[in-house]
Amino acid sequence: MTVKHVDDISVNEVPAGSGTSVQVLISGEEAPNFALRRFIMEPGGGMPLHTNSVEHEQYVLRGRARVTIGDEEFEVRAGNTVFIPAGVPHSYRSVGEEPFEFLCSVPNEPDTVEILESG
Amino acid sequence: MTVKHVDDISVNEVPAGSGTSVQVLISGEEAPNFALRRFIMEPGGGMPLHTNSVEHEQYVLRGRARVTIGDEEFEVRAGNTVFIPAGVPHSYRSVGEEPFEFLCSVPNEPDTVEILESG
Repeated sequence: MTVKHVDDISVNEVPAGSGTSVQVLISGEEAPNFALRRFIMEPGGGMPLHTNSVEHEQYVLRGRARVTIGDEEFEVRAGNTVFIPAGVPHSYRSVGEEPFEFLCSVPNEPDTVEILESG
Repeated sequence: MTVKHVDDISVNEVPAGSGTSVQVLISGEEAPNFALRRFIMEPGGGMPLHTNSVEHEQYVLRGRARVTIGDEEFEVRAGNTVFIPAGVPHSYRSVGEEPFEFLCSVPNEPDTVEILESG
């Protein structure tokens, strides 16, 4: 059992993104089936189009972003949930004036990331 | 792929709790490995001590609660993460003046719930 607070968890830059960092809130070592992470994207920052070999289950905490999934584009805000199946190309662009923050759960399986275009 | 907003998702009472409701944000039918739910506990509401046969990965969105896990008690607030392993007794009591809201992910496995004491 673990109880933590995001303010006490280290924040790491995501090299493939711009203005993007991640916190591992509940790791794959702590939990048997899936991990919970928080991403923070500064205004104007984001992640270029890419695929993951694992699915994403996401919940937007703060801010706004344009999210491309497959051939559709969405604008998301606090309270949006996003499910991205494994292998589907997706990108994020933080828009608005405050950081875009979201939770993202992934299964405890190897994740192969393929960047499809530069940021 | 699905993109939804919590404001558009039905809210269902949790009969085993008091003042407690749940929304299924990403269901076990939509996603292959785990489901994402949001729980809402009115001030004074909560869930009595119980066990689940699956683990919980949680993130507190709003409000405050006293959470008992095993033989420890915690007070949690927005930004707390909670990992409760399968089979460990736990309870929730919403304290403070606004609803206690948290996300809770569970694996797509049968969940047997055992209530250990009345609320």
